[in-house]
Amino acid sequence: MPELRRDPVIGRWVIISTERGRRPVGFPEAEKKKHTGFCPFCKGNEDKTPPEVFAFREPGTAPNTPGWTVRVVPNKFPALQIEGGLNRRGEGIYDKMNGIGAHEVIIETPDHDLETSQLSDQNMRQVLTAFRERILDLKKDVRFRYIIIFKNQGESAGASLEHSHSQLIATPIIPTRVSQELDGGKRHYDLKERCVFCDIVEQETADGKRMVVENDGFVAFCPFAARFPFETWLLPRAHVSAFEMITDAEIALLATTLKDTLKRLNIALNNPSYNYILHSAPCKTPDLEFYHWHFEIIPKLTRVAGFEWGTGFYINPTLPEDAAEFLGQIPAERLKEGA
Amino acid sequence: MPELRRDPVIGRWVIISTERGRRPVGFPEAEKKKHTGFCPFCKGNEDKTPPEVFAFREPGTAPNTPGWTVRVVPNKFPALQIEGGLNRRGEGIYDKMNGIGAHEVIIETPDHDLETSQLSDQNMRQVLTAFRERILDLKKDVRFRYIIIFKNQGESAGASLEHSHSQLIATPIIPTRVSQELDGGKRHYDLKERCVFCDIVEQETADGKRMVVENDGFVAFCPFAARFPFETWLLPRAHVSAFEMITDAEIALLATTLKDTLKRLNIALNNPSYNYILHSAPCKTPDLEFYHWHFEIIPKLTRVAGFEWGTGFYINPTLPEDAAEFLGQIPAERLKEGA
Repeated sequence: MPELRRDPVIGRWVIISTERGRRPVGFPEAEKKKHTGFCPFCKGNEDKTPPEVFAFREPGTAPNTPGWTVRVVPNKFPALQIEGGLNRRGEGIYDKMNGIGAHEVIIETPDHDLETSQLSDQNMRQVLTAFRERILDLKKDVRFRYIIIFKNQGESAGASLEHSHSQLIATPIIPTRVSQELDGGKRHYDLKERCVFCDIVEQETADGKRMVVENDGFVAFCPFAARFPFETWLLPRAHVSAFEMITDAEIALLATTLKDTLKRLNIALNNPSYNYILHSAPCKTPDLEFYHWHFEIIPKLTRVAGFEWGTGFYINPTLPEDAAEFLGQIPAERLKEGA
Repeated sequence: MPELRRDPVIGRWVIISTERGRRPVGFPEAEKKKHTGFCPFCKGNEDKTPPEVFAFREPGTAPNTPGWTVRVVPNKFPALQIEGGLNRRGEGIYDKMNGIGAHEVIIETPDHDLETSQLSDQNMRQVLTAFRERILDLKKDVRFRYIIIFKNQGESAGASLEHSHSQLIATPIIPTRVSQELDGGKRHYDLKERCVFCDIVEQETADGKRMVVENDGFVAFCPFAARFPFETWLLPRAHVSAFEMITDAEIALLATTLKDTLKRLNIALNNPSYNYILHSAPCKTPDLEFYHWHFEIIPKLTRVAGFEWGTGFYINPTLPEDAAEFLGQIPAERLKEGA
């Protein structure tokens, strides 16, 4: 019997329909890095990107030269433009404003062949620290209301360059999905005086059946109303609404937790294309009792896109409990390989 | 300068960023029908599907035998199950219910090689009539709150069988995107005492710059805040909230309007994969002053999926005005070819 499950934050129902898993259509083949042609993100090609705005680099090396381990540059083909005013205006019944914002690329490693989960612990810490530092810097710009950090890994997840990188977009509006979470979190808080995400962490910890990785600081689990097979969320146990409040000590633990989670997905699903998205509080309200920052990690295994785009209604052929069990059972030896 | 545009119904902002159109990544190659292997939707294979629930067929031919022009059958791999009660229940903070619903396939033609826009006018009328009749029948089931009709055309739009077909899913809940439209329509109506979709039709007709096809009964245009390149909406001019209220005369005009619109997209974009989704009023409230049924047609040209899934934030590299001009300019001779 298929099951309808409701996301406790935004109230979206999804169809968990494992019978459709038996359809004669499997998950697509994983894509391997091909390393063909020129890569502007590789060491030695620093002059092929816009000048860096942040980097971790060896002492004594100059900006925009080799010697870096993590490098943040403006996107060469930005979706939004940094200069100008918003100029909100109408056009009959329609509303528009200038496409003002920041669009940056976080190049995670100088090594073209490493995938995020293969980064050294130190390198991964630097990536997460770069996220924090760029958010703290861009928040000073009063035009921005939200900063999104996300990753497209692999061609079918939307990556146009295969060298490991994340992206940051600062926008003058709050994205729909985040607004829905804020509204849902507020509703829950009004009713219970508790953060809905804290409640989720508590139930997932007690239950354990959807847990993938857990430690003193973080939990990674397959959400109850997952939209996609092997969708995994990663949250801090402690209530914090804005990612940029994270301390260095917390970053160290997050780095290993995120690597562990990604490595499990890579082993279980044969290095799938995937996206992760960091959901955090809006720029101007970093300290909310009803919101809780988290990563949503979405392996790109199915292509039932248009229907979902048109309705917001998702059909997931994999039980979150089955996905979590599979990810949780991966032996420690395999997690160490290639680390 | 990129532009942020706000959807007047649900309030979602999109980024219209034509500069990114210059990125060295084009639209993917169109997929052609291959006609390889066995097809359960072809004439003569009627026993390979579940028994038909509706059909247009030649007089004297028996159900589940050749002689049909349009045939509706339950989906062999249904996302939802027709038998049973909903049994709404909790699991800690989570909510769930049984996956009760109907999942049907509308086989649009016995001919494997015809794409929807190539159907004869009569055949297309029968397809739309089948939509109406199946909705009217399924609405009698008090368990259902919404009936979605949609089409996945081409592999990258999610089609697992290439023979032209649409699908119907009846659900015990209202999909998120439709709820958002209902809420947005209600807000506009509370403020203006007018239907927001009627206001859109009026402005698009007066403006003309996003219009693709228009006649006395229907308009097809690229929406102001389109999420996707060449996204096109088709609405009746007259205010009607539920599709199933459509008359035979209106179906005749809708058939040619929809064919014309799809043909333009096929010519302009070299037979792209696409989805269409019929948005209509919920089962139990078919007569709403603030809602207006419409088709959303989405060619599948870009694959920036995961970020959009995670944020609800869309980056569209094509100006809707440019798309509409391109679609509108296709000469009448070309529209007649292959008709």
